[in-house]
Amino acid sequence: MTTKTNVQADEGNTVEGRSSSGSHAAVVLTGDRPTGALHLGHFAGSLQNRLVLQEQYPQTILIADLQALTDNAGRSARVAEHILDLAIDYLAVGIDPTRTTIAIQSQLPALAELTVLYLNLVTVSRLERNPTVKAEIELRGFARDIPAGFLCYPVSQAADITGFRGTLVPVGEDQLPMIEQTNEIVRRINRMVGHVILPECAALLSNTPRLPGTDGRKASKSLSNAIDLGATDSEIRTAVQSMYTDPAHQRASDPGKVDGNVVFAYLDAFDPDTNAVADLKNRYRDGGLGDVLVKRRLEDVLQALIAPIRRRRLELAGDLAFVRQVLKEGTAAARAVTDSVAVDVRAAFSLDAVVR
Amino acid sequence: MTTKTNVQADEGNTVEGRSSSGSHAAVVLTGDRPTGALHLGHFAGSLQNRLVLQEQYPQTILIADLQALTDNAGRSARVAEHILDLAIDYLAVGIDPTRTTIAIQSQLPALAELTVLYLNLVTVSRLERNPTVKAEIELRGFARDIPAGFLCYPVSQAADITGFRGTLVPVGEDQLPMIEQTNEIVRRINRMVGHVILPECAALLSNTPRLPGTDGRKASKSLSNAIDLGATDSEIRTAVQSMYTDPAHQRASDPGKVDGNVVFAYLDAFDPDTNAVADLKNRYRDGGLGDVLVKRRLEDVLQALIAPIRRRRLELAGDLAFVRQVLKEGTAAARAVTDSVAVDVRAAFSLDAVVR
Repeated sequence: MTTKTNVQADEGNTVEGRSSSGSHAAVVLTGDRPTGALHLGHFAGSLQNRLVLQEQYPQTILIADLQALTDNAGRSARVAEHILDLAIDYLAVGIDPTRTTIAIQSQLPALAELTVLYLNLVTVSRLERNPTVKAEIELRGFARDIPAGFLCYPVSQAADITGFRGTLVPVGEDQLPMIEQTNEIVRRINRMVGHVILPECAALLSNTPRLPGTDGRKASKSLSNAIDLGATDSEIRTAVQSMYTDPAHQRASDPGKVDGNVVFAYLDAFDPDTNAVADLKNRYRDGGLGDVLVKRRLEDVLQALIAPIRRRRLELAGDLAFVRQVLKEGTAAARAVTDSVAVDVRAAFSLDAVVR
Repeated sequence: MTTKTNVQADEGNTVEGRSSSGSHAAVVLTGDRPTGALHLGHFAGSLQNRLVLQEQYPQTILIADLQALTDNAGRSARVAEHILDLAIDYLAVGIDPTRTTIAIQSQLPALAELTVLYLNLVTVSRLERNPTVKAEIELRGFARDIPAGFLCYPVSQAADITGFRGTLVPVGEDQLPMIEQTNEIVRRINRMVGHVILPECAALLSNTPRLPGTDGRKASKSLSNAIDLGATDSEIRTAVQSMYTDPAHQRASDPGKVDGNVVFAYLDAFDPDTNAVADLKNRYRDGGLGDVLVKRRLEDVLQALIAPIRRRRLELAGDLAFVRQVLKEGTAAARAVTDSVAVDVRAAFSLDAVVR
């Protein structure tokens, strides 16, 4: 399987150096909400990086089922169904459970405890000012009827990150306020105690541009413009053939635009032969290269990429006992870590002094 | 010890009949924040009722240390210190640990889990409209800098009540919105599941008027106008002598006002001989009864009331191992109940379906 990474090792080192935990190696904390099948956008945006990160650092992937409830409270059964799918996707792309801990958020009661404690350290106006929350409130059309859990989810994310003593958090630019909110809480707790019990974390920004949907808009399940990791041969073919290119590029001989051309965005993301792609781009810009040829190349690349993932997904779907076992062991390991953090944070709030 | 109660047994029965749990007997859930010594206002307002309730119903008193943190996050050490004091006060007035479960909120992780889950069912605007929250925000001068935990505390209270399947909650009129908020959550959860897994609760309103401070204002630690349950003989004497009566009642022969007269408010609350008090009131109104005499009677009543409590408090303070053991056993019993409720509520949100 082709694995192109965009994580710079020295970025990790820098971050590690900046971590207030000082003596410890970096710990990666990442995760997804189980709200639907993963697609190539996820592969380019996060899964590939995780494959590299698991070679370098202790890494936990949190399946954030509780967070998914913040705007899916009435659709909890569907959220539960997606947990196994998500685990299958992880394993199918090569996440190695001996290197990466895969854990289910709702099975880690310490995270709820940390959330409730941290809520006392953050003001409502601070949460309302959070740009990520503001943007998502607008996106979801909540207006004044935001579920309280949704307003509070930066605090829940701080619980997730600190619950694993996470120091490296792969995020997009738009999630930087979450990292800042987490570190505000970390510093407040450390000040309360008088020494460092929680490390600060740093964003691990990827330089991968966001992969567009096949129509050029943001990839989204509801727009049916994404290619799932389990897509069949014919689904891949149909998707590639329907891809948005350059509407002004009518004939092969016309000069064509590469920027905003979805086919080239996918080639940039997945074609291992970057020189060949650069060459194709030049020919396309100059005129003389038809969409059909470029799409054929992309289709070959995607078929080669997805075929082994699809095969592995089928195998895993036929061995759910194994997938469940991976989740069970990962969650148990995660519980040990998060429980130990909760003990420290509870002590910071002078809890447990009377009864143990 | 004199125990006057203002809880009507048939009110309890009515509530029990209304409870949606139907087949179960009423369960009383009450509690205090461990933020300071209890005083006679607490005795008249809640402790006396609890002594009666423990004879009639399963009762849990929750020491709400987590809730105390919602506006005391920086003073957590003091909150912790007050936990043992509070337990000593309970035992000293006659709360019987074989009848009443005394439990520490922060030691019940299921309550944090329930809080986090319920936060998804309540909107921010609903919390902001809560009259109790509004009033307390004003009282504490939070303005826009409300800790998120404070805004969310009605949800935390709903977790407390439902965590014990509480059906009867002794509260003041001002806390009725909390009961309503809890029942909104209960109905939402029951609707999600399709059958009743949580009972609705009802307020158990006491008809005891709020006991004023010795100066006629609201009793408050910061105003030094309350008589603690551990007050010494001379503290009681000084407090009674300083009590606000009727400033127009200059001589014994003057007619005096009984309404707003703190001495009579205390006699109403604590003098077991109601006929004698009625007689004194008449004489005071008509003129011919001096403050000195009425205060002497009140002092005798309070000395008789407080002496055995104070003695018992001293004994308990000398046997902290026993107090700790009561808290330990109560909390363990409470943990079993709250954990079982969390299992049911987690199932309502389709959690635990994948890994158990």
